[in-house]
Amino acid sequence: MFREVLQDVVDRTEGSIAGLLMGFDGIPVDHYAREGAIAPVDVETVGMEFSVILKDVRKASELLEAGGAEEISVRAENMTTVMRVVNDEYFVAVTLEPHGNFGKARFLLRTASSKLVAELS
Amino acid sequence: MFREVLQDVVDRTEGSIAGLLMGFDGIPVDHYAREGAIAPVDVETVGMEFSVILKDVRKASELLEAGGAEEISVRAENMTTVMRVVNDEYFVAVTLEPHGNFGKARFLLRTASSKLVAELS
Repeated sequence: MFREVLQDVVDRTEGSIAGLLMGFDGIPVDHYAREGAIAPVDVETVGMEFSVILKDVRKASELLEAGGAEEISVRAENMTTVMRVVNDEYFVAVTLEPHGNFGKARFLLRTASSKLVAELS
Repeated sequence: MFREVLQDVVDRTEGSIAGLLMGFDGIPVDHYAREGAIAPVDVETVGMEFSVILKDVRKASELLEAGGAEEISVRAENMTTVMRVVNDEYFVAVTLEPHGNFGKARFLLRTASSKLVAELS
């Protein structure tokens, strides 16, 4: 069920590599990699690194009274990652090739997140 | 000169609040706040918090061999922040209201960054 949601986001986003549902503790719940996608790095490793960053972002957002962090994206030379906070315990992330459809990934993650909230509660 | 570049980005981005040029050490070089914008928080405080996050992101990107981090954006309930790495020492950031023009901020930061690279070298 989680995998279907991830697969839907990944398969419908041009230039996506993989999707991941993970706890803020860095423990993955499920992931899906697009067939034939050349992943520059293991998606769970990406998730673990970014779970640390997400925790910092949440702390900063609270401190700055910016309200809850909802979405974080990181564009690096070889990879773009979009993460969305699902609830207090989990986040969902998609990695893309540098020229992948960033806007579509963001849009689909938003709808996926609503579905995941319902499934995780 | 730095302020003019920041002002150009902020004034041309609908729903923007302020722009900031800062070192990765958290020390601000210059900033510009839009007249009449209701800043939920001091822009330099935002910069300092995010300089910590940017350092984490750069470390993670290197570790993941994702190449240099270029752009990071954080959407929180009450504020969106877009940051762009200018060079090894500096980054530029713009804060927006939640419904500010995120795409335009990203685009203008990219061109501003090229100008700032030239001025900072």
